[in-house]
Amino acid sequence: MLSPDSLLARIGAPEDLKKLSDKELDQLADEMRGELIGVVGRRAAHFASNLGVVELCLALHLTFDFTEDRLIWDTGHQIYPHKLITGRAEELHTIRTKGGLMGYPNPAESPFDLFMTGHAGCAPSTALGLKLGDEIMGRPDRHSVAVIGDGALPSGIVFEAFNHAGGSQSKLLVILNDNKMSICPPVGGIANALDRARMSTTYNDWNKRVRSVLPTIPLVGETADRWLQQFKDAVKASLHHGMLFEELGFTYLGPIDGHDLKSVRTYLEKVKAMEGPILLHVLTNKGHGFEPAVKDPVKFHAPAPFMKAEDGIVPLKISTSQTYTDAVSAALFDVCRDDSRVVVLTAAMCEGNKLQKLRTSFPKQFFDVGICESHAVALAAGMAKAGARPVVDIYSTFLQRAYDQIFQEVALQNLPVVFCLDRAGLVGADGPTHHGSYDIASLRIFPNMVVMAPGDQRDVGPMLDFALAHTSPTAIRYPRANLHAVEREVQPIELGQAEIIDWETDGMIVACGAQLGACLQAAERLHKRYGLQVGVINARFIKPLDSRTICKAIEEAAFVLTVEEGCLPGGFGSAVLEAANDAGLPTAHVRRLGLPDRFILHAERDEQLAEVGLDVDGVTRAALELARAVGLDFTDLGPEPDPTTARQNGVAPAPAGRG
Amino acid sequence: MLSPDSLLARIGAPEDLKKLSDKELDQLADEMRGELIGVVGRRAAHFASNLGVVELCLALHLTFDFTEDRLIWDTGHQIYPHKLITGRAEELHTIRTKGGLMGYPNPAESPFDLFMTGHAGCAPSTALGLKLGDEIMGRPDRHSVAVIGDGALPSGIVFEAFNHAGGSQSKLLVILNDNKMSICPPVGGIANALDRARMSTTYNDWNKRVRSVLPTIPLVGETADRWLQQFKDAVKASLHHGMLFEELGFTYLGPIDGHDLKSVRTYLEKVKAMEGPILLHVLTNKGHGFEPAVKDPVKFHAPAPFMKAEDGIVPLKISTSQTYTDAVSAALFDVCRDDSRVVVLTAAMCEGNKLQKLRTSFPKQFFDVGICESHAVALAAGMAKAGARPVVDIYSTFLQRAYDQIFQEVALQNLPVVFCLDRAGLVGADGPTHHGSYDIASLRIFPNMVVMAPGDQRDVGPMLDFALAHTSPTAIRYPRANLHAVEREVQPIELGQAEIIDWETDGMIVACGAQLGACLQAAERLHKRYGLQVGVINARFIKPLDSRTICKAIEEAAFVLTVEEGCLPGGFGSAVLEAANDAGLPTAHVRRLGLPDRFILHAERDEQLAEVGLDVDGVTRAALELARAVGLDFTDLGPEPDPTTARQNGVAPAPAGRG
Repeated sequence: MLSPDSLLARIGAPEDLKKLSDKELDQLADEMRGELIGVVGRRAAHFASNLGVVELCLALHLTFDFTEDRLIWDTGHQIYPHKLITGRAEELHTIRTKGGLMGYPNPAESPFDLFMTGHAGCAPSTALGLKLGDEIMGRPDRHSVAVIGDGALPSGIVFEAFNHAGGSQSKLLVILNDNKMSICPPVGGIANALDRARMSTTYNDWNKRVRSVLPTIPLVGETADRWLQQFKDAVKASLHHGMLFEELGFTYLGPIDGHDLKSVRTYLEKVKAMEGPILLHVLTNKGHGFEPAVKDPVKFHAPAPFMKAEDGIVPLKISTSQTYTDAVSAALFDVCRDDSRVVVLTAAMCEGNKLQKLRTSFPKQFFDVGICESHAVALAAGMAKAGARPVVDIYSTFLQRAYDQIFQEVALQNLPVVFCLDRAGLVGADGPTHHGSYDIASLRIFPNMVVMAPGDQRDVGPMLDFALAHTSPTAIRYPRANLHAVEREVQPIELGQAEIIDWETDGMIVACGAQLGACLQAAERLHKRYGLQVGVINARFIKPLDSRTICKAIEEAAFVLTVEEGCLPGGFGSAVLEAANDAGLPTAHVRRLGLPDRFILHAERDEQLAEVGLDVDGVTRAALELARAVGLDFTDLGPEPDPTTARQNGVAPAPAGRG
Repeated sequence: MLSPDSLLARIGAPEDLKKLSDKELDQLADEMRGELIGVVGRRAAHFASNLGVVELCLALHLTFDFTEDRLIWDTGHQIYPHKLITGRAEELHTIRTKGGLMGYPNPAESPFDLFMTGHAGCAPSTALGLKLGDEIMGRPDRHSVAVIGDGALPSGIVFEAFNHAGGSQSKLLVILNDNKMSICPPVGGIANALDRARMSTTYNDWNKRVRSVLPTIPLVGETADRWLQQFKDAVKASLHHGMLFEELGFTYLGPIDGHDLKSVRTYLEKVKAMEGPILLHVLTNKGHGFEPAVKDPVKFHAPAPFMKAEDGIVPLKISTSQTYTDAVSAALFDVCRDDSRVVVLTAAMCEGNKLQKLRTSFPKQFFDVGICESHAVALAAGMAKAGARPVVDIYSTFLQRAYDQIFQEVALQNLPVVFCLDRAGLVGADGPTHHGSYDIASLRIFPNMVVMAPGDQRDVGPMLDFALAHTSPTAIRYPRANLHAVEREVQPIELGQAEIIDWETDGMIVACGAQLGACLQAAERLHKRYGLQVGVINARFIKPLDSRTICKAIEEAAFVLTVEEGCLPGGFGSAVLEAANDAGLPTAHVRRLGLPDRFILHAERDEQLAEVGLDVDGVTRAALELARAVGLDFTDLGPEPDPTTARQNGVAPAPAGRG
C-alpha cells in the first residue's frame, strides 16, 4: 500500500507528473526505487534493469503524451517504473502473480502498454510500424519511441529496422538504453563500438573544438569546401563514434547521462523537434540507486526474493532444489571435459542456462553470441560441418528466432547439431512470451530431426550422450522444473525407443517428458483409489516416435492417454494419432492431454499446470473421464493415498515453481 | 556438350585453372558466359547474377584451395560458374531438372559445395562456424570465405554474424558482391551507404591524398599525434565509407572492380595474408557480358527460356497462363484501391509476387523492406496496432524467417495482420530450400491464427476480403501453380466453414487448397471407372477447422481421404485426426495424403506432385487403396475417361510447372 503522503500516490496518470517541481521529481524517483526494492523483497522479479530506467521513464512521460504518442519498451522487463506512473502503483506488489500485473507490458492492463514484449529486439520495428500506420491513418503528428537495451542491439531484426528507417528517413526516435549489459556481459563488435562511444565526451563539446580546428587546413575554393564538409563529418564520426548508426541513415546523439533527469529531458525535447530517424544514446547503470545491484548486475537481473539490510541484502528464500537446467549444465560440463570437439553455444543465456562454470573452465568450447539466435544456429551448423560437435543451449521460446536456420542450415543439411531447449513447457511468472509451448509441434515436422524429452533426471545425461553420438540433428526439450527421479532399472537410450515403466491393460498413459512423474503418481492413485490398472510409458522420443510400443498399447489397453507439456495442435499426442492412423488402428479410446490452444497467463508454474490439467489431479481426472467413456467399470474406493506413499514409489512431488 | 577444343573442357577441377595464362583465363571467362547463356536458352534459370560473378569465382579458386579452404555462396543461385569449374561443366545443361544438377550448391554433387543455400544471409554465420570449427578440430590454417550479395546484406543474421566476427576478431573473409540489386531494386540505409561507397574511389588512392594533407594541421606534441590519428581514421572513414563495417570490427577494403580478374586476384592475395575479419567490397554487374541482362537485371534475374539473337533475345516459351500469384496480386491491387488503410509489405519479392503494378499505382501503400522478413512482420504488427490493414506477401518458405515475430508480435497480440503465403507446397525447379512445406503445420499451432487455403481461383478474392475484415491474424496459402476454377455455386467464405462440393457415402475426399482440382478429377475417375461414389469437400479453413462438416463425413462415409500439399507430420490431415479424436470418432477409415517426411529434390512441379502421389493418379490410387482397406466392393470398369470430359466437369488440367 502506498503511503498517502507519498508523491507516487498522487500520480494517477503520466499527466500528473507535469505538476511536480524538479525537486519533487527527484523525490518521486527515489520513491519509485523504494517501491521496486520492496517488490523484489516479495518475489523473484526483474530488478536491476528497472532501477536503471527510472529517470529515463520519467523524462519520456514528461516530454511526450503517450495517450497519443507511441512508446515501446524492448525488452519489456524494464517496464516496472512505467507501470508505477501509469496508474498501476497500488498493484505493483501483485506483479508476476496469478491475476496480478504482468512482468512485461500488457495491453490488457493499460492503454499505455502497446505490445507484450518478452523477446528482445523487435521494438524498433513495431515502433516504426506504429509510425507508418499512424501516417496511413492520417495521424502523422503522433511521435513514436522505441527504448532498446544495448544487449538487444545486436539482434538482427534491430538492424533490419534501422536499415528501413534510415533508408526511408521516417521520423522515429530510438533510445539506446546502454547499461553495458546483455543479461550476461556483452559480446561482439557492436559492444566494442559502444565502448568507444562511452569513452568519448558528448558531441556538442567536441563540436566546438572541431570548429576551431578545421579552418586551419590550408585549402581553398570549392574543393576545400567539399573537403571541409568531409572532414567535419569524418571528425564528428571519429569523435562520437555514432558512425555505425549514422551510416545507416540515423542522426546519432549522445551519449548522455541517463540518471540526470534534467539533461535527459533537454535532449528529448530537442529530438522531439527533429526530423528523420534519431538514435539517442543514453547511459544508465543497471541497479542504479541500490549499491549491491550496481556491483553485481548479473546476479540482480532477476534475483531471488531478498530484503534490504543495513549492510546489503538478506536473502529471504534460498532454493536448494536442483533443476533440469542444473542437470543439463552438469552434463554439458562433463561432455566438454571429455571431448574437445564439443562446443556449447548460447544467446546471452549463460546465466539462465547456468553455464558460468563451463564458460570459465572451457573458454575455447564456449560461445555466447549475444541475443542472436539465428546466428547461433547457423554458426553451429558451420561448426558441425567442420567436424565439431556443437550444442545450442537456448530457451525453447527463443529458439523460435532461429526457426529458418534450424530448417535450412541444420535439418536440410542433416548436420549433427544438438539443441538443448531449456524452459520447454510452462515457465511460471514470465508468462506467455516465455512459455516453450511450440517446440514439439514445430520441430518434429522437419525431416532428419530427432526430438527427445527426458522423462526424469536419469534420462538427461544419457540423452545428451546419445545426441552427441548421433549423426543427425537432435533436440532435447526439458522444463523449467525441479528434478525428479523415477526409481527403475533405467533402460539405455536407443533411437526411437520408448521406455515401458509399467504395462497394464485397463489403461496406458504415454508420458512425454518430465510429466512422467505426475503420470506415475496418477497411475498409482488410479490403482489405489479407483482399482484401475493403468500402466505408464516414458516416451523419450517424439521423433522418431516409438510407434511399435505405442501402437501395441493402443491395441491392448482399454484406453490410452497421452500427456505432454506442449501445445495440443500438432503436438506429441497428434504424432501418436498419426502413428495409429498410419497403422490403421482405431483411436476413439485415445485422448490427448496437453497445452490448450490459447495463451497461458503468468502465474506460478504449479498454478499453470493445475489450470491446464497437467498436474497429478489433472492427469487422474482425464484418465477417469476416459475410463468412463470407454465403459470401464470402477468405483471410488475412498480417500487419496498419503503423498509419502507416492514418494516411496519412486516419484518425487510435482516440480516446484522456479527453475 | 562442351567442345573438346574449349578451355572449359580442360578444367576438371579448380587446380587446372592454375595452368592457364592470363589471356587464357579471359578466354575461359568468355566460354563460361557462353555456357550460361546457352543454359537459359533451354530452361528458366537464375541468370544475371551468375554472369556477374564469373571473374570473382575464377579469382577465388585461383587464390584459395577449396579442397581445404571453405567457400560459401550466399544465396546459392549464383553458383553456376562455380559448378562449371568444379567438374560439372558437362552436366550444366541438366541444371534444375529432375535428376540433374541443383540450381543451388549441393553437397551431394560436389565436395566444393558445402551448404545447400537458398535462403539469403546465412553465409557469414556458416563460414564463421566453419572457421571456428576448423580451429576446434586443429586446422586453423584453413581459410574461410563467404560471398554475400548486397541484397542479402540487410538481413538481420548478417549483422549478427558481423557482430560476432568483429568482436572476436576471427579470421574470416566476407566478399560483398555488390551488384546494386536485391532481385528487386535495393532499399534501405545500407543501400544508401553502399551508394556512397561506390561513388568514392578506392581507399589506396585516397590514402595518398590524405597523407599529403594531414600534416598541415598546426597542432603539436602528443595531443597533435592523437588528433592526427583520429583525423586519419576519420578521414579514411569519410572517404571510403566502409565505416559501417569498420565500426563492427571488420577491416574494409574496396570497392574494387569485380570484372577485372587481375585486380580481384591481387586483392584476394592481399587479404589472404591479413588477420581478423575482412570485408572486401567487390563491384559487379548483374548480367555482365550480356547487354540485355545488364539493361534489365530484374527481368533477367531468372528469365523464361530465351535464345540469343543478333539484336537481343528471342523468347522461346511465352507463358500466358494465369497463376495464383497473379490472382492474389490482382486482388491486392483491388483492395488497395478500395481501402487506403490496406498496405502491402514484401521482402524483396515484388517481382516474384508480381507487385510491380501495385507498387507503382499505390506507392504509399506498398513497402518493400528488402530481405528482412522478421522486420516486415513486426512492422506489419505495428501498422495493424495503429489501425492500418497490413498484408504481408512473402513466400511460404521465407516466412519461416519471421516465425518468432508471427508468434510474439502478431499471434500473441492478436493483431489483424494478413499473411499471403505464396509458393506454399512444391515449387518445382528451385527444390528443397524453396518448397513451402511447413506453413500449415507450423502456423496452425499458434492461438488466434486463422489459416486458409483457397480451393481454386474463385476463393482467392473472397478469402482476402474475409481476411481483411477479420479481427485476428490470418494466413492464406496458395501454390506456385496455374489457376483453375471449379464450376459450382461458390459459397461465401465464413470463418471455419468448409464448402461441400459433393456429398457421397462410399468415400469423401477432404481437399485442402488447390489440390481440390485434382481431387475432383480423381472423384470423377473413381466414379466412372470404378463405380465408387466419392464426394469432395473444399476445406478452405485449416484453422479453425470445420470440425462439424468433416466429422460428419467421417461418420457417414466408408472412407475419408485428406489431401494437402504440406508436410504430413502435424499437417492438415493431423488436424482432421485431432478433430475426430476430440469428438471421440473412430478414424481407422481415414487416411492422409500429403508431403512425406523427407526433402523433395528439384524437378518440374508436376513431376514432384506425381512423385509424392499428389496428382490425379496419386489421389485416385490412395482412394482405391483406402476403399479396398475398408472393404468396399468395386471393380475396374475399363479405360480412363477422356480428359476433356474432366474439363467439362469444371476442372482444368493439373497445374503446370511454372508459377
